[in-house]
Amino acid sequence: MTVNLGVDVGGTGIKGAAVSVDGALAHRSERATPASDMDAIAGAISDLVRELADRCDRDGETVGAVGVACAGFIDASGSTVLFAPNLAWRDAPLKARLEASVGRPIFLENDANAAAWGEFRYGGAREAEDMLMLTLGTGVGGGIVTDGELLRGSEGIAAEIGHLRVMPDGHRCGCGNRGCLEAYASGTALVREARELVRGGSPHAGMLRDLCGGDPDRLTGELVTEAARAGDAAATELFADLGQWLGEGIASLVAVLDPELIVVGGGVSEAGDLLLEPTRAAFARQLTGRGHRRQADIVGALLGNDAGMIGAADLAARRAGVA
Amino acid sequence: MTVNLGVDVGGTGIKGAAVSVDGALAHRSERATPASDMDAIAGAISDLVRELADRCDRDGETVGAVGVACAGFIDASGSTVLFAPNLAWRDAPLKARLEASVGRPIFLENDANAAAWGEFRYGGAREAEDMLMLTLGTGVGGGIVTDGELLRGSEGIAAEIGHLRVMPDGHRCGCGNRGCLEAYASGTALVREARELVRGGSPHAGMLRDLCGGDPDRLTGELVTEAARAGDAAATELFADLGQWLGEGIASLVAVLDPELIVVGGGVSEAGDLLLEPTRAAFARQLTGRGHRRQADIVGALLGNDAGMIGAADLAARRAGVA
Repeated sequence: MTVNLGVDVGGTGIKGAAVSVDGALAHRSERATPASDMDAIAGAISDLVRELADRCDRDGETVGAVGVACAGFIDASGSTVLFAPNLAWRDAPLKARLEASVGRPIFLENDANAAAWGEFRYGGAREAEDMLMLTLGTGVGGGIVTDGELLRGSEGIAAEIGHLRVMPDGHRCGCGNRGCLEAYASGTALVREARELVRGGSPHAGMLRDLCGGDPDRLTGELVTEAARAGDAAATELFADLGQWLGEGIASLVAVLDPELIVVGGGVSEAGDLLLEPTRAAFARQLTGRGHRRQADIVGALLGNDAGMIGAADLAARRAGVA
Repeated sequence: MTVNLGVDVGGTGIKGAAVSVDGALAHRSERATPASDMDAIAGAISDLVRELADRCDRDGETVGAVGVACAGFIDASGSTVLFAPNLAWRDAPLKARLEASVGRPIFLENDANAAAWGEFRYGGAREAEDMLMLTLGTGVGGGIVTDGELLRGSEGIAAEIGHLRVMPDGHRCGCGNRGCLEAYASGTALVREARELVRGGSPHAGMLRDLCGGDPDRLTGELVTEAARAGDAAATELFADLGQWLGEGIASLVAVLDPELIVVGGGVSEAGDLLLEPTRAAFARQLTGRGHRRQADIVGALLGNDAGMIGAADLAARRAGVA
């Protein structure tokens, strides 16, 4: 049996697995990300790939292709990490470095593109031909599939939809600009708003204040989600506010891309309908030409944190011509 | 010699011509648009197509395909005008109606898509593989080419980039929403701002006031352009403001699409560098990841008002399999 290896490199962890042709995972493994040191990260990825390949060999599985998804701008040839806001890479020839160390061809892909491709092939959008995925985590990542192909753009860095500007002179974004969608619809934005609410001293923030023991710096996205799930009005409103920005941002993106389906994934999306219902309502209210076009569905992702590994492995197999 | 016919249906006029395989135009003709009556518009288009076909026949030219570009949402099959803000069409089966009347296959396309395709094939973007075109007229139209193909989207109505929202609760747009790029970067927006400036009574608006004889309602985009060309500071600032919105909007679109080149056309773009210089400056300041990516060029369109006819004819030839 031939499997492909998929690795997903994030700001805190490096995850990998063998991915079968039907999208199933085996031999999961992970490492911590040594984020401050490019050589160390490359070493950790190589080490993980070698471990996975060894485990496949022992099980009598042939390794087809190896795909590595990274949180950063990857050039169109899939060779170089041009820029990674949360990793210590600038114009880093990661493909060559990994290939020298691993002794196999390696295919790089942007992590949000890989996740979108995973959902497109095996997840929430497997019935669609044109889709848009938004990944809401620390930032807002994006992936676009048009006519069954990943939209990579002229330099390989399309679908940076977290950096659509939604508010002139708005909140500062990690990219250096102000007013990006990421500054309103990411997990970071959710926590910023929750902390500000608690700091404001309103009785409305009572449950959130209790959950963080009175220290707003201890609030996390998980705690806000817990409060909203327990029915707390303030936490529910924070998700409604985020969903409104998200739905209105999606309306702008749909005007540009006209996808059949929108998939929302990433940690923030684990709040489910607490997020998706206000997102859908804002989208329905803001979509240009509404009433004269089909309204695309907005659905939750199905593959969770595995989407990047699955997509990276499948894209690598396609690039290598073994899919 | 085989030629293709291209027709461009706008809110005020219907233009047509025979287009050679190298993009040259012959047998130009036009009609006024009877905008309030769908049957009358279809009749005028049919009449124009028959006239062009007759003239080609007389010159011994074979008519290959006929393309009709319309200002409106055209469905993915190129059969139906779903919605046209400035024309009296809702779910109008225009293709079938024209074919019945003309006796030839007709291919419909959105007018801004057709113009983008014309510039991509024969105009300002003929060296590019990935491009974005913005057409600044009464509204802001858009066309997107990725990997050498027009991006049509799942329903055929992608690239409605005039309806990217750039300002929450901003100016009302003709689409019914508020804050669309079209409400800030169109000819309509330019004239709105110029009139408001004149009405405000500032001495700064002196030349604009003189040009309209003191009646702001008589101001037009052409008059504002004339004032800016003559060096009037107020008119120059109006173009600078428009260019800033446009450049910042383009930065958002480039984050999503990563095109190689951006082409700006339409009547407003006739102001040339009075518009394009502030557009480029705002784009350079706002592009996410600037410094870590190539900065796409922003250039003026080359084909002027002919782009739609040329693009419609070429797209029709491709769809008909005669290109």
